[in-house]
Amino acid sequence: MTERFIIPRSVEWNDTHITILNQQKLPSETEYLELKEISDIWDAIATLKVRGAPAIGITAAYGLALAAQRYKASSIDEFKQQLQKDRDYLASSRPTAVNLFWALNRLVSSIENATSVNEAKTTLIHEAIRIQVEDEDVCRRIGEHALSLFQDGDRILTICNAGSIATARYGTALAPFYLAKEKGIHLHVFASETRPVLQGARLTTWELMQAGIDVTLITDNMAAQTIHAKNITAIIVGADRIAANGDTANKIGTFGLALLAKSFGIPFYVAAPLSTIDLATKTGKDIPIEERNPEEVTHIAGTRIAPEGVNVYNPAFDVTPHELITAIITEKGIISGNYEAALPALFEGGETSETI
Amino acid sequence: MTERFIIPRSVEWNDTHITILNQQKLPSETEYLELKEISDIWDAIATLKVRGAPAIGITAAYGLALAAQRYKASSIDEFKQQLQKDRDYLASSRPTAVNLFWALNRLVSSIENATSVNEAKTTLIHEAIRIQVEDEDVCRRIGEHALSLFQDGDRILTICNAGSIATARYGTALAPFYLAKEKGIHLHVFASETRPVLQGARLTTWELMQAGIDVTLITDNMAAQTIHAKNITAIIVGADRIAANGDTANKIGTFGLALLAKSFGIPFYVAAPLSTIDLATKTGKDIPIEERNPEEVTHIAGTRIAPEGVNVYNPAFDVTPHELITAIITEKGIISGNYEAALPALFEGGETSETI
Repeated sequence: MTERFIIPRSVEWNDTHITILNQQKLPSETEYLELKEISDIWDAIATLKVRGAPAIGITAAYGLALAAQRYKASSIDEFKQQLQKDRDYLASSRPTAVNLFWALNRLVSSIENATSVNEAKTTLIHEAIRIQVEDEDVCRRIGEHALSLFQDGDRILTICNAGSIATARYGTALAPFYLAKEKGIHLHVFASETRPVLQGARLTTWELMQAGIDVTLITDNMAAQTIHAKNITAIIVGADRIAANGDTANKIGTFGLALLAKSFGIPFYVAAPLSTIDLATKTGKDIPIEERNPEEVTHIAGTRIAPEGVNVYNPAFDVTPHELITAIITEKGIISGNYEAALPALFEGGETSETI
Repeated sequence: MTERFIIPRSVEWNDTHITILNQQKLPSETEYLELKEISDIWDAIATLKVRGAPAIGITAAYGLALAAQRYKASSIDEFKQQLQKDRDYLASSRPTAVNLFWALNRLVSSIENATSVNEAKTTLIHEAIRIQVEDEDVCRRIGEHALSLFQDGDRILTICNAGSIATARYGTALAPFYLAKEKGIHLHVFASETRPVLQGARLTTWELMQAGIDVTLITDNMAAQTIHAKNITAIIVGADRIAANGDTANKIGTFGLALLAKSFGIPFYVAAPLSTIDLATKTGKDIPIEERNPEEVTHIAGTRIAPEGVNVYNPAFDVTPHELITAIITEKGIISGNYEAALPALFEGGETSETI
C-alpha cells in the first residue's frame, strides 16, 4: 500500500551551489533558489527565506563549506583565518539563532586538526552533510516514536510549522504524518493557521499537501469547535525550548491547545529533538516571553486590519506547564510523567552526537 | 470624575435622510453615509455597510419610514399597498436577517389602524424611532447589570463585536465598558481579533478607542497566555441564540474561551437581550452550525494566505454548553445556575415590548 510521494526539503547541497526553498514566497509560489555566493546565503537567512532552527543551521553550514572551496590560501593557518572571517559574517545573519552558531562552530571545529588546505576543504563538506544527515535521522526517529502513539484513522491537530521544511527532512511534530503516509496509515491532520505570522496556513498545509497528506486548515479560534465536531483524537506540537521539569515553550497558542486537550480528555504531545531540552532552565517561569512588533498583529500581508494607534499584546510564544503534556517524544524515545527524572536520563547512553 | 466621550452610533435619523457609519471601511476610514433613497438603504444592508442584528433592524425601519414620506397615495389603502411593496423590497436585502423582518413587520403593523395618509406617515417615523430608543434602553440596562459584576481595575476579555455599532447604542457585551467610562470606573478590555472576519480587530477596538476606553488587541490564539500573563478577571461575550437550557450559540471562538475561563477559574458571562433567547430551541444540539465560504479563511484583505485547493473547515459560530456559562446578563437582570427554569421566568412580567 506504499505510495510514491514527495516530502519537501528546504535545503540541498549541489557541489557548486546550495538549493533552498524560498519559504517567503509560500504558499503563492513554490520557488527554489540556487545560492552560489556567501552573500546569497547570508541574505537567505537574514530575510527568512529559510526558517526553522535546524534548516538555518544546515544552510549556514553548507554556505560556509561552499565559500571555503574557493579559498586560495597558501597554508592551513591562512585557510583557518579566512574560514573564521566567513564564519563571523554568516553568524551575523540572524544574531538570535542559536542553531546557526552551533552549526558554524561545528564546521570550524571539524578542521582543527586538518594538516592541508585540501583536506580541510573536503572535511568541511563532509561535516556539513553530516549535520543534515544527523538531523534527518533525528527527525525520522521522532516520527517513528510519535507514530506508535497514533492509529489508522486518527484526526490530529497541530499548530505552527514543526515540519520538514523547518528541518533537514520530516520535521518534528509533522514527522509521524510522513511516516504514516509511507506505511499506508491514514491520519487526518488539522492545521491551526497560527496568527500572527500564519505558519500553519502558509507552510504546514503546503508541505503536507505536497506529500498528498489529508490536511484541513482552520483558524486558531476554531480549535475547540473542531476538537468537538471533528472528533480530534490528539494534539501534537513542536517545541522551542523544554525546561528541566518538562515545561515547554512553543509558538503562541500552544498553551491554549494544551488546556483544550485537557478539557476534552485527549492526549497532548510535544515532539522535539534532545537539542531543544535545556536542563539549565529549571522551569517555564525562567523562560522570558519575547514580545514582538505590534505590526505583526495589526497588519496582514501589508494591509492594516486594526485602527492606527491601537494597543497590542504580541507574545511570540507561550509556556505550557508540564502537567498538561501527556508525553514528550524525542529521538531517544517517549517520556511522560516525571519529566524532571526522565529528561536527564535521555542524555545518558553516549549518543549525544545526534542531539542537534 | 465623569469625562466627556463619544459612544459611536451606527444609525441616525435626520428627517430628510438617514446617516449610517460605513462599517465596511473600518478601521482604515471613518466614513458616514447620508442615505436618501430606499435603494441606498437596500444597498447599505446588502453590502454589510451596516451590520449587527439590531442595527440592521433599525436601519431598515428608518429606511421604510423615510421612503413612505414621499408616497403620493390618495387613500390609506393605496398607501398601505405602496408600503408593503417597499417592505418586501427591503426585506430582500439580507434574506437571513431575522431582525430585519421583525423591524419591517413592526412598522407595517403600526399603521394597521391608521385612518389617513398623514397619520400613517407620522406613525411610521415614531415607530422606527421607538425601535431605536427601545434597543438603546435594552442595551443600557444590560450594561448596568453587567457592570455590577465588575470592579474598578478589572481586566476583561471579549471576542467579536457585540458593541455599540451593532446595536442602537452601547451594545451588549461592550455596554458595561461604556457605562464604566461614564461612571469613572476603569476597566481594561482585551479584544480578541476574531478570525476569520476580524470583527474584534476592525470594529471592537475602533469603537472602544472612540470612547477613550482602554483596549488591547490580541490574536485569538493569545487568549490563554493573555489570561495568564495579564491576569484577566472575566470574559464577556454576546450571543446569536440562547437555547432553553442556556446553551449559547455565538461567534466561532466563544466555546474555546469558555473552556479557558473554566481552566483558569474566572467567570464567563454572556450578555444578550431577551430577543436572543429562543425557548423553542431545547438545547445547543438543536442549533445547526453554519459553515461559510473557505475564502474567508484562505484570504485576508484579498491576499491569499493558504495554498490553492486546501481543505478548510469554517464554522461561523460554535455552541457553548450552559454549564460553562457563569451567568447570562439580560435587560431583565442576571440569571445563573438552572437556566431551564430561569430563562422562561424572564419573559413573565409584561415588559415584552422591550425584547427586540
